[in-house]
Parts: sequence; C-alpha cells; structure tokens
Amino acid sequence: MALLVAKFGGTSVGTIERIKNAASKVAEEGRRGHKVVVVVSAMAGATDQLLGYCRSVTPHPNPREIDAIAATGEQVSAGLMALALEQRGLNARSWQGWQMPLLTDNDHTKARILEINTKTMKARLEQGEVAVLAGFQGLGEDGSITTLGRGGSDTSAVALAAALGADRCDIYTDVDGVYTADPRIVENATKLSKISYEEMLELAALGAKVLQTRSVEMAMRYRMPIQVLSTFANEFGSDLLGTLVTDEDETMENNPVTGIAHSLGEARITLADVSDKPGVAAAIFGALAQAGINVGTIVQTGSKNGQTADLSFTVPQSDLERAEQALHDEQAVVGFQHLLTDKSVAKISLVGLGMRTRPGVAALMFKTLAEKGVNIQSIETSEINISVLVAAEYLELALRALHKAFGLDKE
Amino acid sequence: MALLVAKFGGTSVGTIERIKNAASKVAEEGRRGHKVVVVVSAMAGATDQLLGYCRSVTPHPNPREIDAIAATGEQVSAGLMALALEQRGLNARSWQGWQMPLLTDNDHTKARILEINTKTMKARLEQGEVAVLAGFQGLGEDGSITTLGRGGSDTSAVALAAALGADRCDIYTDVDGVYTADPRIVENATKLSKISYEEMLELAALGAKVLQTRSVEMAMRYRMPIQVLSTFANEFGSDLLGTLVTDEDETMENNPVTGIAHSLGEARITLADVSDKPGVAAAIFGALAQAGINVGTIVQTGSKNGQTADLSFTVPQSDLERAEQALHDEQAVVGFQHLLTDKSVAKISLVGLGMRTRPGVAALMFKTLAEKGVNIQSIETSEINISVLVAAEYLELALRALHKAFGLDKE
Repeated sequence: MALLVAKFGGTSVGTIERIKNAASKVAEEGRRGHKVVVVVSAMAGATDQLLGYCRSVTPHPNPREIDAIAATGEQVSAGLMALALEQRGLNARSWQGWQMPLLTDNDHTKARILEINTKTMKARLEQGEVAVLAGFQGLGEDGSITTLGRGGSDTSAVALAAALGADRCDIYTDVDGVYTADPRIVENATKLSKISYEEMLELAALGAKVLQTRSVEMAMRYRMPIQVLSTFANEFGSDLLGTLVTDEDETMENNPVTGIAHSLGEARITLADVSDKPGVAAAIFGALAQAGINVGTIVQTGSKNGQTADLSFTVPQSDLERAEQALHDEQAVVGFQHLLTDKSVAKISLVGLGMRTRPGVAALMFKTLAEKGVNIQSIETSEINISVLVAAEYLELALRALHKAFGLDKE
Repeated sequence: MALLVAKFGGTSVGTIERIKNAASKVAEEGRRGHKVVVVVSAMAGATDQLLGYCRSVTPHPNPREIDAIAATGEQVSAGLMALALEQRGLNARSWQGWQMPLLTDNDHTKARILEINTKTMKARLEQGEVAVLAGFQGLGEDGSITTLGRGGSDTSAVALAAALGADRCDIYTDVDGVYTADPRIVENATKLSKISYEEMLELAALGAKVLQTRSVEMAMRYRMPIQVLSTFANEFGSDLLGTLVTDEDETMENNPVTGIAHSLGEARITLADVSDKPGVAAAIFGALAQAGINVGTIVQTGSKNGQTADLSFTVPQSDLERAEQALHDEQAVVGFQHLLTDKSVAKISLVGLGMRTRPGVAALMFKTLAEKGVNIQSIETSEINISVLVAAEYLELALRALHKAFGLDKE
C-alpha cells in the first residue's frame, strides 16, 4: 500500500463533470489499496475571473487582497472535490492552506513555502479520511492568506508529498506525459516514460509548460518522484501510465538529447552604437538588475571603429516595457544611440543528461539549422542544455528538423 | 467621532461599480471623522451559484463542505471592498471569519456565534486601518469553516458591532428604510424614521424581509441601534437617513399600529373528520414536532355529531411536504378522513407597541376586512401583533384597506 498525492490541474477540475471524473480516479486508487491525498487547482478560468475583478476595482490592487480573493478558486474546487469523493463512498474533507497550516513567507502573489504542519492531516489519514488540499495557497507569517504564484498548485502538491513522506506525487493534467517536444508542433514527438529531475527542470525553465519549475526544483530537493499523466485517459490506476520524473539512472543517457523545449516568451533588445568604454556594461546591466529584470544571453559585436559597439540581450517579454524604461533612464550614462526591440524571437533548447559525455551536440544542432537556412541570433549553454535564439517564424521548421536530427522522431 | 459598523448586502455589492459606490459611502463617513468597520455579503447571485455547484455534484452535499464553498462568496466581496477602499485612499484590509476569529458552534449552514475576538482588529482600527469583515461566515469549534444561514451577514454585522462596542450598525440595502407596509403593494406606505427592537422583531418574523430576524434579536439583546438605509440613495453621511431600530421611547406609541407585515410563505393544512377523542391533538402535533415542523395558528371547528371535528393549522410552505408525510404516517392513530392543503393563503400582521394600551385594534381590523368582503381563516395574536390568515388573492386589497384604516397612509 502506497501513500500517493494526486494533483489535478484547472482543466482537470474545469467542470462539475470533470471533477466527478477526477474523483473516480482517486476512488480507483483507493480500491487498489492506496491512501490518497488530493491537491486541486481552481476550476479552469476561475483564477483569471477573480484577478479580472481585482483589476476592474483598481489598476494596482494590493497583493494581500489579490491573494485573499484568488485563493477562493481553490477553496471552491477543494470543497467540490471532497463532495464528489464523498458521493463515491469515501470519507473526504477539504483543507485550506491556513487549516493545515501550510506556512509561507509574506511575499504575496509569489509566496514561498516555509513549513507544512501535517500532524492533524496524518492522524486523519490514519483514520481513513481522504484529504483534499486547496492548492496554490498558504498562510503568511502575519496570518494573511498567501498564494504561491501561477501554477503554484504543482508546488503545493510536491511540497505536501514531501512533508507527508508520500511514495509519489501524481500530477494529473490535460496531457498524458512529458514529450520529446511539443506534440502540437512536432507530430513525431514521443512520450518519455522516464526523465531525470535535472532534465525536467531545464525543460520546464526553458518553456515546457507541463510542470511548474519550482515544483520540479522541490521534487529534486526532496527526491520525490513525480508522475505526469492525463486526467482524461480512460485507464485507471497507478501503474506508470504517464512520465515519471525521478532520479537519473543509467538508461537515461542512451541519447544525448532527451527533449527539446521552446519559448516564445522572450524579447530581444539591441542597443546600437554603445560607447565602447569601461563601466558601460555595468551601467546597463546594473540598471536592469535594479529593476529586477532577468537578462538572458548577451551578445556584443566587436567595436566598429574603436569607439562604439552593438549590444544584444534577451529579457522576458513581460518585462520588456520596464526594461526599455530602465535603459532610457540610463541613456546619458551609457551613451547608446538607438534602442531596438524584437518580440518575434523564439528560443529553442536541447536538453539531455547525455550531453555531458557526448561531444558534437552543438555541432549537429548548428549544422541542422544551417541546412534549413535558419539564422542563429545567439547561443546559451549549460552542462545539460544548448539554447539558441532564432526568428520566431522559423520555430516550427527548426523544431521538427532538430527533433529528427537527434533521433527523437517516433518510428 | 463615532465607531460605526456598515453592512452592505448582496445587491449593494452586486457589481464592481456597486462595490465602488459602497466604498464611496464608507470613505465619506471617514471624512466625517467616523471610524468605520465594513461587513459585506457575497455579490448578488454568487451564493446561489456556489450552492448550485454543490447540488450538481451530489444531491445531499455534506454541510461542512457546503460551508467551505459558500463562504468564498463573502471572501471575494470583502477583498474587493478592501481594494475599492484602498483606491479611495483608505488603509483597508479584509478579514475572514477565521482570521478574527469569529467563533461559532459546528452546526454547519446555520451556525450560531459563540464569541468574537476583536483584540487584533481593535488594535488595527486604532492605527487607522479600515476593517472589512466577510459576513455570513465563522470558524467552528473544530476548526472548520461555518456559515450562519441565509441573510447571516446581518447577524455578523450586529454581532461585530456589539463586540466592538460600536455606536451604531448601519445596514445598507436596496430599500431606504423600514416602511409601514411593503411599498411595492401599498403605494401610500411611509418610511418609519424610528422603530423599536420589539416591533422590528415581530415585523421581521412575520414576513418583512428588510432584516434577518436573528440580527434583530441580537441587536435587541445588546441594545445596539441599527439603521436601515439605501446604498443607492445619493445622500451621503450618517445623519439618520433611513430607519433607526432602537429602544422604544414615548414617541413610538402615538399610533397603535406601527407597521403591517405579510407573508405568502405559509400553507394551511386541514384534517377533516378527525376523531373527537382525547389524545388526538397530541398525536397530530407530536408527530409534527418530531419532524421539526413549526405549526402556526390552530383552529378546531366544533364537534359535528359529537364524534368528529375539523382541524386546521398553518405550516411553512417549505415544510408542507414533510408535514403531509408525517401526518399520513400517523393516520391510523389519529383517524382523520381527509387531509386538505392550501398554499394560496396570506398572513397579514398588524404590529405596534401601542396595541398594549389601546383597545379596539382587533375590532377595527376585523371590521375593515369584513367591509371589503375578506374572510378571515384564522387569527393569532401576541402582545404587540395581530395576525390573520386570508385567501392569498385578497392580499393586496386587505393590505391597502388596513393601511388606510389604521391611519398609516401618507398625506
């Protein structure tokens, strides 16, 4: 008998019928002899509606009140899930973040979990109760309601699984696992039966939307296996149906590349004719750091006439406006002539533990893109990933070509 | 400088625009130098939607989960109200029932308030914060979320006002006060500037919907003045604009009748040819009491032939079906021949402290109805009210005639 945490995302609890369907999956695990703790997101659309209310009251809503309001989405779905489970004969109870309590810091709308008190929940699990935790939310140190940020229910689920010492955390979602690439673009993408924490973390950070990055970090820290699987598949039960995110093992390095992530969420800023003198780069990136903006790959072209150079880098599109503002404020110090922006860029990233030991991945990547006529705007690498920035219009072409070149296409 | 509790009902916070309007009223009280604590209902329609969700999951939802789900309505409106107040320059904060805590018993969906801890709220009020309490909800003794039943936000507001030692509790609603009769039926109805707790309690219990009965009981117990006033009137400020519900004073007894309430929510049951022997009444009303059904006026016609009589009484329409069931179960013991029911009845009630000292109220009531050809089916009286049951089709005619006969028409 295992203790499982089963997390259902917003689409999986998006309607009453879907909540009932999810409850059937939980009941089935119960029949298989497992103890199950459920974590739910808000019904799809609920959070957006609530945030829309906040913004219609005031353009800059107080984050503390945003959290109090947004947390109701999960409170509703947790209650409804408990009702659906009870209807299936289980003794279920909903839990709010403050009821555990799941303690967080006071950084509203993006709080971090400090501690989860599982004493009462454990005692009730022992008595046969099924617990349904409202995801995404916690109790701040000052007694206010906090939320963990977009997708925070994944983090709630993994953190609760770790705190309870669960055997596995199942993330039920609208896809049936982690794929070698986005199957909506690459029709030959294949589902991975296993992936290491490290690779999943890179994929999530580089644009794969299937799991929230923080939840993977947390799973890696606590060595908590995560299974990603579909709520809508007809199969029941906890035999591994989706993708297991777990410790790396020897089978994982057969292929140098495990998966390809992509992101359309970045923008490129080019500062033209920047004075080529000491302290300029510090002024530019100091100003951006001051504004809390994460800067991606930086490319500097050689000095044109010994006096000016061009400087390019990426920022998240959501930060582009603030970045431009911060740079214009520093224009006098930096002395650039023009500021150009480009939102039509795509980042494509190859991820794989196998890269650590197999050379030639970068060479094959560049060759493949060159053969298709795709110009690489910038390159970024880490031990287990290589990312390139290309014009967005080449995204699909480049993804498919790379997927094939690295032997990821299904047979 | 006064400490006021201002409660806004569901219609008053039914849209974002209305929440902003309500916030303006609170801000105006602040400018007049008053400290204000706000209590809000859920946005109109929200509670019904949430209860609808519960019932679509299961026909008999667990009351504990109903409460966890329904309480989110007020959590949202409290947060939005705090945002709207902050937008108007006030330092506002929403409070959930569990955050105070407002402690209740565990009688889910109709919990009773046990204690309100106002220590932290008082300290924050002293620092100039405006508190916005989510009405309707509390924290049960076992740590679960409870709700106080339909219209419970009125009770939350009066209880909080009493606990804080407020100077007055203002109930903002969609009517501008308490009227001598329902102005939708009696166009000559006039707004009362003052009414005693006792009279308001009778009117509320007898069908006037402007205040929840329990909230008036609580106001009477703690001698907390309530003002009923409109959220939608353009006047601002706390000079008495609506109706003040307060201790009786000598001005209140000028007229024997203060107001006329009516209710279409009752049904009449007639048991025909009931055996006229000892113990029969005990069997009938014992069975109904067992089923938890409150029985109104009972009328027994004289024995027809020394062996059987007819027996009529009223029950709430919502209990009619259960009452019929309970009586049929006892038919063998009671020995009635037929059970007739009539939902087309109206109860009309004259209420006034003046009745205690002025005779002739009943006589004038019966005479007035007789002149209009309205047959009285039954009569019930207390120290300060006389109620009659009439056929529902006579409701408007009877109300208007009585309103005029007792000198309540406006000039």
